[in-house]
Amino acid sequence: MEIVTNDLLNYNNLKIIQCNEYFNFSLDSVLLANFVKVKPTTRQIIDLGMGNAPILLILSTKVNENVGLTGVELQKEIYDLAVKSLDINNLTSRINLLNMDVNNLLDYYESDTFDIVVSNPPYFKYNESSKINENLVKSIARHEINLKIDDLLIVSRKILKNNGSLYLVHRTERFIEIISKLKKYNLEPKRIQFIYPKRDKLSNLFLIEAVKNGKSSLKIESPLVIHTKNGNYSSKIEKMFGGNDVTKKL
Amino acid sequence: MEIVTNDLLNYNNLKIIQCNEYFNFSLDSVLLANFVKVKPTTRQIIDLGMGNAPILLILSTKVNENVGLTGVELQKEIYDLAVKSLDINNLTSRINLLNMDVNNLLDYYESDTFDIVVSNPPYFKYNESSKINENLVKSIARHEINLKIDDLLIVSRKILKNNGSLYLVHRTERFIEIISKLKKYNLEPKRIQFIYPKRDKLSNLFLIEAVKNGKSSLKIESPLVIHTKNGNYSSKIEKMFGGNDVTKKL
Repeated sequence: MEIVTNDLLNYNNLKIIQCNEYFNFSLDSVLLANFVKVKPTTRQIIDLGMGNAPILLILSTKVNENVGLTGVELQKEIYDLAVKSLDINNLTSRINLLNMDVNNLLDYYESDTFDIVVSNPPYFKYNESSKINENLVKSIARHEINLKIDDLLIVSRKILKNNGSLYLVHRTERFIEIISKLKKYNLEPKRIQFIYPKRDKLSNLFLIEAVKNGKSSLKIESPLVIHTKNGNYSSKIEKMFGGNDVTKKL
Repeated sequence: MEIVTNDLLNYNNLKIIQCNEYFNFSLDSVLLANFVKVKPTTRQIIDLGMGNAPILLILSTKVNENVGLTGVELQKEIYDLAVKSLDINNLTSRINLLNMDVNNLLDYYESDTFDIVVSNPPYFKYNESSKINENLVKSIARHEINLKIDDLLIVSRKILKNNGSLYLVHRTERFIEIISKLKKYNLEPKRIQFIYPKRDKLSNLFLIEAVKNGKSSLKIESPLVIHTKNGNYSSKIEKMFGGNDVTKKL
């Protein structure tokens, strides 16, 4: 098992602890962190299923000191990577990490606690015939084995303040289902951005902001194209990364 | 009142009759006509609220002779423009036009009649405080005065064959509402394409194909950007139009 320290893009020289056997952070998390809009009134942000904490690391550079940052991760092996990531960035006292099941979060927090909930959840549905990864830690991070989308939305709705925002990244093939479920739980879709691997390809992922008890009004932001025709990062992505070469590894 | 004959892009030298006072066809209709996928099994296509018939004119160049083409338009003034448009293109015997209310269509057609329903419906909600156009003919074409989205979907669902496709163009600000209503009527969203005025702008319109009793599976097609930064048509639109200069008037 190799645990390595990588640069987390160019965000204030952040480092991140990775482990191929358990969890490597993905571009998806970086895009989601960039999609989050923090307001002057934002006081508490939580990441549900934080992985090795890339979103919280990035958000720590975007918000001032009086905004509380919390992350929750069920799997001890991945949680330990996040703890190490905070340590090497001297952010241990800045970000609060919980090694617990998101499904148990309501025993821990009052309703109406957070201004922002952010999550890069398991993307794939799970049933007994699912071809899951033989590595259980990776499988739980990728498949809805422990955390189903409904559970995530129910918990998010509870712990969000009224008019607080839930931010998700998810697979476009599940878009209609997720929109329907957000509506069901009175989490009103307000901003969506579709992600395309290349300009002439189908969208594979989307970013969404949904507001608890929000009024109907939707913005679909300009398309986010990842690669140019010849496989380089698009100018939008390059700009996001500040031209840091390490990002090519993602 | 000026009734003029314009070129309808470069589609087989089609002409179209326009009247500023009542109805000019829009780019939206051309994009929708291009979005329609006709299958080898397609036998009957209907346009609900056809205006001066741009979609049917374009579709007549895309399908072979044994595919029936029908259009419905409530407003006599606009219906008359469509009749004239068919006449100057020698398509009167090819396309069947009905001057009637879409809401009454179920008295006229059996259920499960059409393979494809296409519509560029009134975009704007209407209530007594709506600022509508003083011109009633234009207002009925633009506002949900006579044809509400629910009515359109109920009629479409009835007259579509099982697994038949409904194609719509609509405003992105009403996207979530329309998705929810399509699901409600078992018209499953299958293909969506978002339209952006420019690459870095919010989407203003979207194209959607929904299948009657279709299984869940969604494709979001590559973004359709209309104009380049300097205001020219994008290469995708130029390609659609075949470089015909008259299109700049749209």
